[in-house]
Amino acid sequence: MENSAKTMEKIIALAKGRGFVHPGSEIYGGLANTWDYGILGVELKNNIKKAWWQKFVQESPTNVGVDCAILMNPQTWVASGHIGSFSDPLMDCKECHERFRADKIIEDYAAENGITLESSVDGWSQEQMKAYIEENNIPCPTCGKHNFTDIRQFNLMFKTFQGVTEDAKNTVYLRPETAQGIFVNFKNVQRTSRKKIPFGICQVGKSFRNEITPGNFIFRVREFEQMEMEFFCEPDTDLEWFAYWKQFCIDFLKSLGMKEEEMRVRDHDPEELSFYSKATTDIEFLFPFGWGELWGIADRTDYDLTQHQNVSGEDMTYFDDEKRVKYLPFVIEPSLGVERLFLAMLCGAYDEEEIGEGDVRTVLHFHPALAPVKIGILPLSKKLNEGAEKIYAQLSKKYNCEFDDRGNIGKRYRRQDEIGTPFCITYDFDSETDGKVTVRFRDSMEQERVAIDELETYFADKFTL
Amino acid sequence: MENSAKTMEKIIALAKGRGFVHPGSEIYGGLANTWDYGILGVELKNNIKKAWWQKFVQESPTNVGVDCAILMNPQTWVASGHIGSFSDPLMDCKECHERFRADKIIEDYAAENGITLESSVDGWSQEQMKAYIEENNIPCPTCGKHNFTDIRQFNLMFKTFQGVTEDAKNTVYLRPETAQGIFVNFKNVQRTSRKKIPFGICQVGKSFRNEITPGNFIFRVREFEQMEMEFFCEPDTDLEWFAYWKQFCIDFLKSLGMKEEEMRVRDHDPEELSFYSKATTDIEFLFPFGWGELWGIADRTDYDLTQHQNVSGEDMTYFDDEKRVKYLPFVIEPSLGVERLFLAMLCGAYDEEEIGEGDVRTVLHFHPALAPVKIGILPLSKKLNEGAEKIYAQLSKKYNCEFDDRGNIGKRYRRQDEIGTPFCITYDFDSETDGKVTVRFRDSMEQERVAIDELETYFADKFTL
Repeated sequence: MENSAKTMEKIIALAKGRGFVHPGSEIYGGLANTWDYGILGVELKNNIKKAWWQKFVQESPTNVGVDCAILMNPQTWVASGHIGSFSDPLMDCKECHERFRADKIIEDYAAENGITLESSVDGWSQEQMKAYIEENNIPCPTCGKHNFTDIRQFNLMFKTFQGVTEDAKNTVYLRPETAQGIFVNFKNVQRTSRKKIPFGICQVGKSFRNEITPGNFIFRVREFEQMEMEFFCEPDTDLEWFAYWKQFCIDFLKSLGMKEEEMRVRDHDPEELSFYSKATTDIEFLFPFGWGELWGIADRTDYDLTQHQNVSGEDMTYFDDEKRVKYLPFVIEPSLGVERLFLAMLCGAYDEEEIGEGDVRTVLHFHPALAPVKIGILPLSKKLNEGAEKIYAQLSKKYNCEFDDRGNIGKRYRRQDEIGTPFCITYDFDSETDGKVTVRFRDSMEQERVAIDELETYFADKFTL
Repeated sequence: MENSAKTMEKIIALAKGRGFVHPGSEIYGGLANTWDYGILGVELKNNIKKAWWQKFVQESPTNVGVDCAILMNPQTWVASGHIGSFSDPLMDCKECHERFRADKIIEDYAAENGITLESSVDGWSQEQMKAYIEENNIPCPTCGKHNFTDIRQFNLMFKTFQGVTEDAKNTVYLRPETAQGIFVNFKNVQRTSRKKIPFGICQVGKSFRNEITPGNFIFRVREFEQMEMEFFCEPDTDLEWFAYWKQFCIDFLKSLGMKEEEMRVRDHDPEELSFYSKATTDIEFLFPFGWGELWGIADRTDYDLTQHQNVSGEDMTYFDDEKRVKYLPFVIEPSLGVERLFLAMLCGAYDEEEIGEGDVRTVLHFHPALAPVKIGILPLSKKLNEGAEKIYAQLSKKYNCEFDDRGNIGKRYRRQDEIGTPFCITYDFDSETDGKVTVRFRDSMEQERVAIDELETYFADKFTL
């Protein structure tokens, strides 16, 4: 299929139609860019998290996992810098009362007019942005007038109150990243795991950012799930480990079936780096709407542990008992959003295939480990349900299976293709006597005959990563 | 072991010491009753969720799953009744400025004085509670004076603001239960799954309740994870299905190794039932601090779907195309907290065993499916690490394993017993020549010799539920 045929419209239609993603609170007209994961979406999401956990925690001799609370002591966000500077520069148009991100207005203006900015707007002060907008006479993107308010900083953390009174003393935040839960537990994990440096701590969990302009379906959302690792290493080994984990992430994506031509790696220029970072790389994916950031890998140096040590007064150092030295470890952080990888996998898997005689099938070529339904179990006739149900009962102990006895078999195969089921088992009249079923492959559409009592062995290695 | 030796102090000490549970944001002095799950806790929690999902979704021919957003359109909470009545009756002591739940003060007073109340305080009005406190001259539990404020209702939902301004228009809530995400998606799920009634929709996810008095370690917390199912059935079949799922839940707990004497089932009296419920049962567990609610199973009738239909204006009915009738399904809801089951499993598994010669071992008798570490891999000497590491590399593709080469083998067994690892593999000098290892069982402490190349087959059925 040509890439141009793979549109967001088609992918969103399939996602909503088949139970991958529904608009959140849909019967109430939704809630700005929240999404609910349906019967297949929850399975795909769980499989993505499972795959990441398997490779980053379970199989790794150096890494362990944690699961920290979303609500943290606000001092955490003082130390991390989120209270001070996790904000967007906003301004209003006094004429039409629309609200905008000043940096976005400048970037869009530059892009439209073919202007190359000398440095990334990210690093500009409010005054610089305001001056640029005035000097270039940039108009309101909505009404075209030139009457903006001053720029002010809007913190992106969701705020709530714990306890009975809604005052500053009781203000807590929904975490904007899972990483800080790892840092504050660095000593707890080191003590309980007895790990020696280098080692990694991994976490999967929800984070919240009050984005001004969420969008592109599930690409940028306010409530999302992160899969983050903080890998702690000796100070002078950080760039080596940075290179190691960067490659590890690329290999992980490839092992899930991501195509080379749909990925690119973008190293940040020195002026683009956060002040504490020695190196940062984005792995980008070619979505139907263009290249978008998928995975950020950053060398965060000893910034976070230093900050927490300073603000908490707790000793965050590590003592190397072979070298007899004490130090604050450096940190490599690969940070990935579950929803982004979900969308990338959905887009990457989507295909419309000519299958002869003018017929076209829609198929999701998911890696079998990610496929929401592993095996479709299809009795050729309702008269054969009993035998097919026995197979369902047996295989569903291990795999998420779908039983479908409705409609002609060709249409049932198409339904399974469209949701990415890698294998279908057809139980037919011969099965009753020869004890065999037909296994049909999603990608090749080929079929083979397998004995029912060998199915477990047959599938044993089919879904591994 | 006698039950009296199984104290919360010991269990909490083990939980913190070995990486099950740490106080949240500990380096900042914590944050009122938040908890972080450590290297073993995250695995136990994931295994609990996996076990529930396997039995309630994967193996069930009637049930499917969803994963809905935590932030929902506030109309959801109007329909569900949470905005109107999900609140605690609070009052302050004007003398010492402590804050109390009025219902709790009355219940405690009655219990201390051996008074049997005519009806549950839950059902009393504010006026009734105030009158009772005054008539009985109940003093402030902290300072003993008699000078309370009026009672007022305090809503238990955490409130936040989505978007730039902190006003009523932008107010959203952190969901206090996962159930409502299921109800608002009833039609989406029915359409995409093509399920016929009866069928169930299951969800695992975080919920938040701004409890005034959280406590008992992780028993009552403000941020918690729920495993909920809403099972939709024909109106006159609800009590049958209620009985079915009640038994299913009991069987599930037993299959995880819960002992009969540590469980009891408490059916709610008619006057205790919510006004919309036809039947409710609590499955309770005997924690070291006493009996506590573990699992609530409720017949919610058609209350929720009716409410959502009324408030949203959307048609929430189901059309039975065989009987040609349209109706609002009735709902059975088993609702279980992950942290509660986690604590029950931890308490149930804890044991201190006399193992001869005055020696005592601490052991967690987890069901193998729940054990955080499945297999400990222990080279008898560091010289044997290479061979043992190969086994780790092979088995960790399937199971969470721990490699431990430190200390004498007896102490290493004890360490694994204490975290509930069901099997240890010891790789010794003979292993180098005979290709066999010793497998040691946690519960019986017996050992057997197994060929290395048969280990995968050996363990294949050891961790199933």
